[in-house]
Parts: sequence; C-alpha cells; structure tokens
Amino acid sequence: MIKRVGGSTVRFVTPPAIKAWGNVAGKKEGHGPLGTLFDMVYEDTSLGEKTWEKAESRLQNEAVRICLDKSKVNVADVQYIFGGDLLNQCISSHYGLLPYNIPFYGTYGACSTMIETTALAAMCIDGEFADTCMAVTSSHFCSSERQFRTPLEYGGQRAPTSQWTVTGSACIMLDRFGEGPYVTHHTAGRIVDMGITDISNMGAAMAPAAIDTLSRLFEDTGTKPEDYDLILTGDLGQIGSDILRQLMGDIGYQMDGVYSDCGLMIFDRERQDVMAGGSGCGCCALVTTAYVLRQMREKKLNKVIISATGALMSTVSNQQGQSIPGISHAIILSNEKGA
Amino acid sequence: MIKRVGGSTVRFVTPPAIKAWGNVAGKKEGHGPLGTLFDMVYEDTSLGEKTWEKAESRLQNEAVRICLDKSKVNVADVQYIFGGDLLNQCISSHYGLLPYNIPFYGTYGACSTMIETTALAAMCIDGEFADTCMAVTSSHFCSSERQFRTPLEYGGQRAPTSQWTVTGSACIMLDRFGEGPYVTHHTAGRIVDMGITDISNMGAAMAPAAIDTLSRLFEDTGTKPEDYDLILTGDLGQIGSDILRQLMGDIGYQMDGVYSDCGLMIFDRERQDVMAGGSGCGCCALVTTAYVLRQMREKKLNKVIISATGALMSTVSNQQGQSIPGISHAIILSNEKGA
Repeated sequence: MIKRVGGSTVRFVTPPAIKAWGNVAGKKEGHGPLGTLFDMVYEDTSLGEKTWEKAESRLQNEAVRICLDKSKVNVADVQYIFGGDLLNQCISSHYGLLPYNIPFYGTYGACSTMIETTALAAMCIDGEFADTCMAVTSSHFCSSERQFRTPLEYGGQRAPTSQWTVTGSACIMLDRFGEGPYVTHHTAGRIVDMGITDISNMGAAMAPAAIDTLSRLFEDTGTKPEDYDLILTGDLGQIGSDILRQLMGDIGYQMDGVYSDCGLMIFDRERQDVMAGGSGCGCCALVTTAYVLRQMREKKLNKVIISATGALMSTVSNQQGQSIPGISHAIILSNEKGA
Repeated sequence: MIKRVGGSTVRFVTPPAIKAWGNVAGKKEGHGPLGTLFDMVYEDTSLGEKTWEKAESRLQNEAVRICLDKSKVNVADVQYIFGGDLLNQCISSHYGLLPYNIPFYGTYGACSTMIETTALAAMCIDGEFADTCMAVTSSHFCSSERQFRTPLEYGGQRAPTSQWTVTGSACIMLDRFGEGPYVTHHTAGRIVDMGITDISNMGAAMAPAAIDTLSRLFEDTGTKPEDYDLILTGDLGQIGSDILRQLMGDIGYQMDGVYSDCGLMIFDRERQDVMAGGSGCGCCALVTTAYVLRQMREKKLNKVIISATGALMSTVSNQQGQSIPGISHAIILSNEKGA
C-alpha cells in the first residue's frame, strides 16, 4: 500500500492535474459575491425546461459541455465520468449525462458529491485505469425544495438555522498530464452521526463528519492548518462552521484566518436572505471551480484543503425519527506536484 | 494506461481476490431455488424493525457483519467500503453501515450496484490505495414497492412484464492477497436509453445497456461467449433476457447454453408468482455471492462474466414522461489470476 500515508489518507504518486472545469449557476448565485466568476449564469432558473428536475439535468449537461469545450478534449477521449446529485435516484446526472455516452459511475455523497467524484476520478487516473476523467454534480433550489421540504407554492417559512440550496452545477476534468493545480492527497469520509435530528440545521449535523475527516487528514499528513492557504468546508453554513472552528480549536487545530466554508462564500448573507448560508451539491462545486481553482491558476492560492460535507438522510428517514448522519470527503489541491 | 485492454475494459494487473462474502435473504428468496445457499434467511422480513426501511438497513448491516466474521478480518483493517441501494438518498447504506465506521463511498447504480461497488473496490486495490475493501448493496420488496409503486396495503395488480424486487443484501470482501476467485477485468457501463417508458417492463429498458457493455467486453478482451462457463446479467428477467439473447445473437454473440439472468435464478417463476422474475440491488448481490462465488470456490465454474443492470429512472422522471435509461457494469471473475 505504497500510496497511503498514515491511517486513511492517500497520497497520489502521479497527482492528477485539473485540466479544465466548467460551471453554470442560477440567478441568485449570479447575484452573489462570486457571480462574475461563473462560466454561465441563467437568469431564468427553469432554463426553459418544463420542470425543475429537467432544468437541473440541463445544468449538469451544460457544465460538462463547457468543461469539454474549455479543455479542447474530445468527449470520446474521456474514459470515465463520475456523477451524482441530490434528487431521488440521482436523475439529474442520468438524464443530464446520457447524451455524452461516457462510461459512468453513479455516486451519492449528498452535498459532498463534488469532492467524492473528484477523488474517485483522481484514484482512477493515479491507479492507471484512465488518463482523463470527469467529475460532476449539481443541485437546484426548486427541485430540492419540493423533494426535501415543501413545494415553492406553499411558501413555507424558513428557520434561521436552515440553508439555501444552491442552483448550479460544475464539472472538473482531471488528467494524468498537464499543468496544475494537482490533486495531491485524499482523505475518504466516514459516516458520522452525533444524533442531530433537526433537518433545518444540517450544518450542525454535518460538522462532526468534517471534524473527523480534517483531523485524520492533518494527522495522516503531519500537516497543520497554517501549512495551507485555505481550508474550505462545504457546506456547513454559519452554524456548522462555527461549531467546526471551535471544536477543531479544542483539539489543537486553530484554523482562524485560513478557514472558510463554501456555504458562506457563495451568497452574501446580509443581502441575500439565505439564513445560515448556501448548501446543495452545487454549492461546493461552484465555489471549488469558480473561486478555488481559478485562484490557484492565478497563483493567489497554492495549497488548499477542500472537505466537502453531506447529510445522508432522506425525508423518509427523518419522518421515521432517525437522526442525520453526515460524511465529509476531503482532497488537498496544490500547485506543486510534490507537495 | 497500461491496465486498459481495447477501448473501455480494464485488466487488473494484480487481480483482487474475493476473500469472503456474506448474504442475508428474505422469506420468499429463502423459499426459492437458491434458498439453501444463503448465509441467513429471515422468515420475518421486518427483521423485527418498525419500518421496512429500517429492516433494509439491517439487511446491509447483517451482510457486512457475516462477511467480516467469515473473513476473520478486523473491521479496522478494511480501508474502504463501497455501498448503495435503491432507496431515496441511499438510506439503507447510510444507516446500515454507520456502526462500522469504515471510510465509505456512496454509489448509485440502481440494480447494477453490486457490480459497480465490486468493480470500484477492485480498482481501489489494484490502484494500490487499499489492501482490503468491501462492496455491499441491498433491496427490500416492501420498501421498494411503496417508494416506486404503491403501498403494499393498496394491493395493486402487477403486469406480466413486471419484476419482483428481491429482499436481501450481500457484501463482498476483496483483498490484494489470497485465494480466488479473482476479479480479472471490468467494463464500465454507459447510460443507454432506447426510449422505453413502461415502468412495468424494466427488463426491456435495461437490456440495451447490457448489450452495449457485453459487446464492448467481448470486443475489448477478444473473447467469445464460449470462452466462459457462465455469462450472467442481472436482473433483466424473462422479457429483458429474451431480448438480450436475441440481439446479442444478431450481432454475432451466440450465448445459448452459457447465458442466464439473476432475475431468473433467484425465484421459481412457475411456483412463486413473480411475473417476469426478480429484480432489485439484492438480486444480483444474492445470486453472485450465494451461487456464482460458491460454485467458483468449488471449481464448478471457473470463468464467469457478471453484467449487472440498473434502470436509472425515478418516480418523478417517469411521471414527467421521461423514458428509462439503463446502465450495466460488468466484471470478469476467474479462478486463475492470469486469465
């Protein structure tokens, strides 16, 4: 097991390069702090489709197309695509990716999916099964609201601890060759459940999983928070990230100044009425591609941890009184291969 | 890309060994043709739980426990577990696997999940990220009926083309070292949609995906159906497997005598009133472990293709008039590493 450092973190021998990315955002995201950084913003979040679910499939389809266009790679040269989303049976991915005819692995990691898919794609390349892979995910506020909460028409009140599902999709192309940033390490998430049952407080439910993953990552790699330019969780929002910052500090990982959360970056909480912040598979996907990878290309950031978080419940498990398990998959991105 | 043969088939350099497996079946499966081969059969398919969803989680939990017990491997020495199921947001896996605390990758491949997880686990080992991985999936007739069709109490009529969701779970442990059978090759599925919209005829919807995968597997490996002791699809049932056999014959792959389908093996269609046969993630999982792997250990079978099939729709996509895309992930199992 030459590629394993410490207990549960993988170090890639040939760190896959992020060759290209593409992203598509909705109106509210386009009006947020990162709005000018997206490849495409749809002011009409129906994308001209008749249903929200079809609109979400289109988001994934467009993100992949933009990524392919930017990479100048022929679709037939992509060996695998890893995709998944929040909708029941992951239909956004299935219908959105169908036209591309790329060998497909369906994943489900809730809002951690962007990093789960990216990590698996990196393993596929470093494991010598492929030269070029893609990773994609999406979420849509309207399809999520009606699936997980109430139809929009119902006009349900939102709790102050609740988070706003991001409308957007991003696709990352990884390649054995090429310029960085590179995926150098990966720590896989474990399912962690601390007994939170409030589905209006996902941040609190997911924070323990991120703490579990980040502390293993630091321990396995022998690094500290100050070794990174940015440590990003996604998407704990204000409540979850406050919990995380405090508890990480308690166990000796002081992250002030270097830590942020995708759910806090995608929206302006003062101005955009999103309660505790953003969430959804699209949240980490948009922030990772539009902000992190772009800043890394411009050498404004050089070494970054992204530990995406997902809440692994369903409406049924919640109605049956089950608590909310979380998971957090992490990768280290670096502009240096040997980092 | 040294591990790729032909276009889209991977050949493992160090074929992972199937070290152990565990399975748990429901009452109807226990009374079927393979009934005596299961590790455990629950005559009470509630497993003493208050809901069908909790019962299904228990199935996965038990399958993993049995597999661990048989392997004599300590749970802390399992580096990754790949799991997934049919329930919305894959809750059977999340709640069933939570107690084991193994780094977890959630997958969604509908009824192809047993082979998707096994293939990804094999890639993880051959890619040198792990020595020991597990792959698990489940389905439950009662949780599936109420999620995908109607509550049991409704007493809905079943179409003759419909299939019966298997109640059961199986877990496979793969290891870098040890006796076979080995996973020697893997062909990843592509999403294929030939326009079938009848959710009571999943076999017809999934058959084209299996044809796509099997024909690529044969082409990539330069093998023919007669090179195998058994070619198994799962779970096309009678309708889908008739379509597959005929269309494979039309393109030059005569499979009579060597071909069967998990959905036809798990139940006795004459006696058990299951319409076109079995289906569900548990179907391929039970047949693969209870029958195929056992027969391979006893050297009654030596070289087998399993091409599991999944229908990638949801009730929402169906209600919105979308057709049913299918996918089929295949592996080759062999008693010889160099096969």
